[in-house]
Amino acid sequence: MNELALVDRLRKMRGASGIGNDCAVFRPKATEDLLLKTDQLIEGVHFQKTMRAETIGERALARPLSDIAAAGGDPRCCLVALAVPRTKSERWILSFFRGLLNLGMKTGTVLMGGDLAHDDKVHCSVMVLGAVKRGKALTRSGARPGDQLYVSGALGKPWGQTIEPRLALGRKLSGQATACIDLSDGLALDLHRLCKESRVAAQVESVPIVRGVSLDRALHGGEDYELLFTLPPRVKPPAGTTLIGTILRGTAGVVSFAGKKLAPRGYDHFT
Amino acid sequence: MNELALVDRLRKMRGASGIGNDCAVFRPKATEDLLLKTDQLIEGVHFQKTMRAETIGERALARPLSDIAAAGGDPRCCLVALAVPRTKSERWILSFFRGLLNLGMKTGTVLMGGDLAHDDKVHCSVMVLGAVKRGKALTRSGARPGDQLYVSGALGKPWGQTIEPRLALGRKLSGQATACIDLSDGLALDLHRLCKESRVAAQVESVPIVRGVSLDRALHGGEDYELLFTLPPRVKPPAGTTLIGTILRGTAGVVSFAGKKLAPRGYDHFT
Repeated sequence: MNELALVDRLRKMRGASGIGNDCAVFRPKATEDLLLKTDQLIEGVHFQKTMRAETIGERALARPLSDIAAAGGDPRCCLVALAVPRTKSERWILSFFRGLLNLGMKTGTVLMGGDLAHDDKVHCSVMVLGAVKRGKALTRSGARPGDQLYVSGALGKPWGQTIEPRLALGRKLSGQATACIDLSDGLALDLHRLCKESRVAAQVESVPIVRGVSLDRALHGGEDYELLFTLPPRVKPPAGTTLIGTILRGTAGVVSFAGKKLAPRGYDHFT
Repeated sequence: MNELALVDRLRKMRGASGIGNDCAVFRPKATEDLLLKTDQLIEGVHFQKTMRAETIGERALARPLSDIAAAGGDPRCCLVALAVPRTKSERWILSFFRGLLNLGMKTGTVLMGGDLAHDDKVHCSVMVLGAVKRGKALTRSGARPGDQLYVSGALGKPWGQTIEPRLALGRKLSGQATACIDLSDGLALDLHRLCKESRVAAQVESVPIVRGVSLDRALHGGEDYELLFTLPPRVKPPAGTTLIGTILRGTAGVVSFAGKKLAPRGYDHFT
């Protein structure tokens, strides 16, 4: 199957729209800001060779969707850059896109374009465009001393588990939370990042942990894809979230856990 | 150097802005449509290992910019997903971004975010967001029988030559041309695509060729990054473009050159 024929198949799939031009065209609303995020998913780095094509496609979209959630936005469309070995069948590629499009349809993310190439192994980048009410995008930089620190769900999930982007929670937090980040690299590293951007410190008393998992795994493991956020004092938190600590005046990025300094160690591709 | 420190360096580079949150935030104008495009640049596929980091960075951005030009738009910002081997130095990565940002500053494309990872070889996807007057995006699908077919520049450029995205020409064509495509995979294949989308046929009489290059190379070689476009009869073409043929009623996608059928053969990653 050549590229022309493959693209023809893809553009007819449910959940795809507007494929077939040099650029995808998106009409924004005047009342909205747009959110942009890209994430890579690489064979042997982010997933094992044995993972099913549909699961890979789903994860490739789920990861950037988690960032759209952390910014309080609604996903609108995505572009997919996919490289696969020549040995991969047309069926494999279509399964990859089926997995991606299933999550796309659940979340309102339309596949609008992309780029296909051959490479030694599977390498995928998904760019998601989301929208949020003008001026209401959540950032990492708005946390203030005295704010309360919350997390959704429980930490230390098994690696490779289905990612459920916290889009509904993110939408609730937009206009309420002072700062937000998605936990992709572990609480310790991601909270450090949030505090650094907000130029504050934080103390964490305790965290909700997945049953049977070590504290180290829950703090430094990554791949939780929950939201970590701050609310001003006396603002009621949404259901399903847990108060874990407080934002403090102090050296930017310094975090303590149960009274001890917490090292910003987590999943870092560059260490 | 870890990821935190590297991202810190990148966000302070000239031509970068808004890096440091889960998503980049872009405020659209109510009078504009947005254009989205992503392109991959892979070591051993799109460039050789020996290519300089700055040149790779520049090409990685230039390719999707050529598509923004073909849609008649102005580039506004980009996201970069970059994977590099662990053996690459911090200097290599910064040089890559310097090359990309130099072209970004020349063309008004701000680096707003991205994703870094390690992989066996260099693999890069750049997503560009552009803008065009509402309803004025050029597409491949508007060519009508009787339209005149034009190309910018000369075809058959040496592979690996500096790509100069035809942004100024694209802007002139927006609102004028009935269809447009950028020549990345060779005239034969790209004209076939344009005709297929427009449900028309075309005849080409002759094409401007780079001196010393074979006709086959000029028709099927790819990597020209010129614009191929159609104008209604009697519309004056912009300077620096050449009339090469005519759009005809006929089987969608069928192209003749100098009276013979032209096979849609070119640079296709999937054959």
